[in-house]
Order: sequence, then structure tokens, then C-alpha cells
Amino acid sequence: MNKATRLTELDEQAIEYIAIGAAVLGTGGGGDPHVGKLMAMEAIRKFGPVRIAQLEELDDEGLIVPVSMIGAPTVMLEKIPSADQLTKPLDLMERELGRKVDAVMPIEVGGGNSLVPVIAAAQRGIPLVDADAMGRAFPESQMVTFHLEGIPCSPVAMADERGNSALMHTIDGVWEERMARALTVEMGGSASICDYPVSGAQVKQSAIGGTLTLAYEIGRTLFEAKKQKLNPVRELLTKLSGYALFHGKAVDIRRRMDGGFTRGEAVFEGTGENKGKSLRLFFQNEFLLATVDDQPLAITPDLITLLDQDTGMPVTTENLKYGARVTVAGLPCDDKWRTPIGIETAGPRYFGYDFDYVPIETLAAKGGAVK
Amino acid sequence: MNKATRLTELDEQAIEYIAIGAAVLGTGGGGDPHVGKLMAMEAIRKFGPVRIAQLEELDDEGLIVPVSMIGAPTVMLEKIPSADQLTKPLDLMERELGRKVDAVMPIEVGGGNSLVPVIAAAQRGIPLVDADAMGRAFPESQMVTFHLEGIPCSPVAMADERGNSALMHTIDGVWEERMARALTVEMGGSASICDYPVSGAQVKQSAIGGTLTLAYEIGRTLFEAKKQKLNPVRELLTKLSGYALFHGKAVDIRRRMDGGFTRGEAVFEGTGENKGKSLRLFFQNEFLLATVDDQPLAITPDLITLLDQDTGMPVTTENLKYGARVTVAGLPCDDKWRTPIGIETAGPRYFGYDFDYVPIETLAAKGGAVK
Repeated sequence: MNKATRLTELDEQAIEYIAIGAAVLGTGGGGDPHVGKLMAMEAIRKFGPVRIAQLEELDDEGLIVPVSMIGAPTVMLEKIPSADQLTKPLDLMERELGRKVDAVMPIEVGGGNSLVPVIAAAQRGIPLVDADAMGRAFPESQMVTFHLEGIPCSPVAMADERGNSALMHTIDGVWEERMARALTVEMGGSASICDYPVSGAQVKQSAIGGTLTLAYEIGRTLFEAKKQKLNPVRELLTKLSGYALFHGKAVDIRRRMDGGFTRGEAVFEGTGENKGKSLRLFFQNEFLLATVDDQPLAITPDLITLLDQDTGMPVTTENLKYGARVTVAGLPCDDKWRTPIGIETAGPRYFGYDFDYVPIETLAAKGGAVK
Repeated sequence: MNKATRLTELDEQAIEYIAIGAAVLGTGGGGDPHVGKLMAMEAIRKFGPVRIAQLEELDDEGLIVPVSMIGAPTVMLEKIPSADQLTKPLDLMERELGRKVDAVMPIEVGGGNSLVPVIAAAQRGIPLVDADAMGRAFPESQMVTFHLEGIPCSPVAMADERGNSALMHTIDGVWEERMARALTVEMGGSASICDYPVSGAQVKQSAIGGTLTLAYEIGRTLFEAKKQKLNPVRELLTKLSGYALFHGKAVDIRRRMDGGFTRGEAVFEGTGENKGKSLRLFFQNEFLLATVDDQPLAITPDLITLLDQDTGMPVTTENLKYGARVTVAGLPCDDKWRTPIGIETAGPRYFGYDFDYVPIETLAAKGGAVK
């Protein structure tokens, strides 16, 4: 994407687009985009548009803090956080570090977490960085590019909606995940969190840039396709160099709350050219593995996302319903995830799937995917 | 006890006595007294004797902080904390409150936690207060006299042996218990903790005074009885106005790690005058209920403690072994626990036992106890 076309400001229209794009990149998770959208809209109405900072604009010495929600998306739908809850970890972080935060950023571009920092940026009148630390959504705190590059996660600040809060120093991102997840469960299944406070220089080095703009472009593409009566799924996959892995109808969905996650599995019966086949989709907040006849079509850290066959609109793990007709789409992940430490951190074996990671392009070339 | 005879300083002999007395008052739990003893001894050898402050000596404006270990005693036996781990929460507390701690105190007089603050006091050269907030040991953080009197538990500081730490603000002691317990489980089953930072005035008002001296006197009584070849169990119970509830032999012991606690049940077959009867003892870190034929002989918050029939030495939940010959003894709890909020907080129904609390004196008058 041309940097000249990148976002400079978020208004209500941009929020609308980003919410959709983030649900595509959210691969089913990342927190409910609808809740994130409503909260971001309200903040912008109240405080005015949010300025977007591109990576190259950041002062190397600046303090950038990711703001997000941690927990099971299932819970966030029912327990919508207040603006105060979202900015509480930022207050704790500033107090701990003894300085003001210069800008906020999404920790993940996927789902509601792409828009959660909008509320903090609007309320404080500070910029939101057009970047994130996943280029998608992932279920665990250490699954961020900052972790891959050895940036400490601490201090970690958390708050719930009742007034409970915690400021933690953990020896690494894996310990953060354990401790923050345990607190999240006690806090009722979701909490607001700030972790990986970084310098401008660190963000430039380690974050994935332009991902809010990417989410915006995805949303705009789906809207435009609808307006121009084009096939939205095809338009989108062309734009993203993505793959249509399978066309099918949801015939079985099992999700459960487990250790602060929504875990489960969905089965799709093939439609059209996939008739007679069935696809299994495994998730832990996010879709992580798609198989047909026990052979993988797409494997984490590559992105697996569900698109409504008619509208091209993304379907989350939470909103997937029996009978839904979807295209299971695959998108290549950022190259940072295709390193040995990337695969170790967020590859199939970490999640307990008995496959080696194979890039989606390779799997597709073998004929797995339906272009 | 006459205040004139209260402790003024802790030396190695005093530590020896207190470790034994605290195991009696620990009603089976409170952390292993042997580990606490070894650590306290080492600290005193290194830094010299610790000055004991009586409640009336404290400045009303002073900052007093309890220092303890949280978790399952089973784990603490295998994962002995370092002095650094114990003083880390104190550092966090001072940083958070912006002032130095004037004295430390035990949160509970029972078990190892009676001696844990000795290490902090020795290392920092500050006094240890002759008081605690239970007058015994209890398994959960909110089971303290401070909680009964509405004193906030926050900030709460915790540390593990690896370098992970947390500083929490919780809305009350029950939330502290949930959150701190969840972190303790992640931290491997035990952690160091400072909670309920209090003023001198608050300690005078709400703590139970003289309990370190009481533990010392218990230890000394058992030592003296042995030296003078008196019956140690009888000597002790006379001194404490306690009751010999049952004489028996351990024939079944079931303990399991569950949610950061050691939970279980033990069965004793009667010996001597209790021959033909059997007593069941229920515990969650501490002994909480003793029944014969499903009728209670002693009920939490009154103290139930196990004494070796020959030596009078206390037996903890961890050290209770098949075949052990013990006297199950009962002691009345402090009056602060016999209030409606005391019973609600640490009475039998809180722990899920289907009995109303009846004071041990009343149960004994009905003929339950064997004097």
C-alpha cells in the first residue's frame, strides 16, 4: 500500500470501515468489533476525531503504549467496558514509568482490540499509531512481534469494571500471559490491559506498520463492492492476495469457555465446488487451523477468516451460527511470524495441533485452496 | 498474660519457642513452621536480634505492614523463599505509599507466617509488632480482624522467587483473596505478600495483641514440661484453657492441592477413653471442623490443633502421618471472631460445613470434649 494513502485521522466513517476490516484480520477473535466500534464512535462524538500517527512520524524517544482488552470475546459482548476502565491501565502505566504516554496503539489489529485504543486516544487527545504488534489477532499476550524481538512486556497494567487493578512486572511475555490470564478469569473473564510500553524507536523496529489503514481499506473495499454490485469476497481476496479455501455451510459449532478463552471447533459442509467435502475449523478465540480430510488448508500463524458468501462480511467465532454460508478464506501472515521464533510462539504445535507449519502459498500451490 | 512479661526482643531461643507455639496456634496450617524457623534463625544470625514492639509503643501515625507467605503449605516446604523474595513486596508497598515502613507484623500467628516477618524486620532493622490479625491461622486473605473492622486491604504487593511481582488495588479483602490466590497458583503455589498496610492507631484498634508472646509461652511450656517430665499436653491445655477433644491414632489422611490450598480430611481411631469411637477432622490448610458420629466437637473459628500424645508437640496438616498418636485439642478463638461478621467470614458455613457455629466451651459443657 502506498504510504501517501495512509490514514491521518479517524472519523466515524473510518471507524465503520476499520471495524469491518479488523474483523477480517481478527480471524474470528480479537474481541467483538461491534462493541469496539460503538465505544470508539461514542468517544469520537464526544472528543472529536483522533489523529493517526504513522511510524515515521514518531519521536524515537516517545513513549507508546498499547491499550487492549484481554479475555474471552464471549464475555466482552456481555460486559462492555467503560472508557474509565480502558484508561485506568494507562494511568497506572504513567504512574509507574513516571512520564506521560505520547501515543497509544492497538496491540492487535484484529477485532475490537483495533478500536479499543481509539477511546484512550480520543479521551486524552493523543495520537493513535497506525501499527500493531500482530498484524492480525492472536489469543495469547506473548504472541506479539515485540516478544519475538525480545522487548520486555513489563510493566503490565490491568483493570476491571469494578475498581480492581493490578500493576505487574513479569520476567517475560509468557509469564505475563499466565498471570494476566489468571487475573482476567478472576475479574470475570475480561479486563482492560496495557503491556509492552515501547519507545518510538522500538515501535518502528518491531511493530507491523500501516495495519489500521489496511483494516480501513478492507472495510472500504467491502462497502464499495456492495455499492457497485461486485462479488465482495472476490474483490477482497484479490486486494489482499488471499485464498478462498472452502465454500460451505456451518453444520456444527462447539464453543466453550476455558481458562479465559473461547475454545472450540466448527464443521462446514461444502457447497458449490466443495460439495461432498467437509472442513473442520479449530479455534482458541481465533481460527487457528482449517482441515479437509485431516489435511491442513491453512495453519496459524497464517490468517484464517470467515466471510459471508453473499456480503463478504466477516463472521467471528462468537457470531458464527448454524447454517451460516461462508467462504473460509486464508491470508498470508506477516513475515515476522514466519521465523523460527515466530512459528515457535504462534505456530500449530504451540496450540497442540500435530502439524508442521507450511505457508499458505505452498499449501495452495498443492491444490488445497480454491482460488 | 501479664504485659510485663511480654517479649522485647527475639533471639534464637525465642524463635525456637515461637516456632512451636505458632504450630499449635496454626491449627495445622499457616505455612510450615520449620521453614519459617530456619529462615528467621539465619536472619537473626546475620543481622542480630529483632526488637519486638508492643501495641502501646506504636506511634499512631506509624506505617505497619504485615509480611507473609500465601499459598499451599505443601508447596512452601519444597520452594523455600529467599529473604529477597520476602522483602520485595515491602519495597513495592513503600514505593506505592511513598514512605518507609516503620514496623512489620505477622498477618497470622499460626505456622511459618508467625516468623516470616522476622526476616524482613532483621534485614531492615525495624521492629516486629507483638500482634497479628487472626490470633491463629486461617486459609484465606480476608480472614483477618482488619477485614472484620472494615480496614482496606490495598495496596496488596506480591512476589515470586523468579522475579515476577504484582501490586494490586482490590475493592475489598474478598477480591484480594480471589486475585492474589489466582496469582499464587500461577506463581507455582506459593508467593510472598504484603497486604493491609495499617497505621499504628489501626493496629492498636484491630489487631490481636501479644500473640507472639503467647506463641513463645506455648513453646516454653512444652519445653519446660519435657524437662520436668510433666505431661506436656495437660500442661499446655491448662495454660491455654483448652480442651482435649479426642485421643486417637490417624488411620486415614487425604490431602490434595486444590485452588492454591491443601484440602482434605483425616480420620482418627480412638485410643484410651475414646476407644471404639472415631473422629473426623476437616481441613483447608488449617483444621476447621472435628466431628465424632457426625456431631461437632469443635468448629471454626475456634482453634483445633493436633498434639503428639507423648511430646505435646504440634502436628501440621502436612506432617500428619498414618499411625500418628495424637490428642485433638480445641482452644477458644479471640472474641473478635465470635461476632456476626466474624462467623460470616470464617465460620463453618463459609467453608461449606452444614453446622452452625457453637463456641467450644458450650460444646464441651455438653460433654463432647474429654477434659
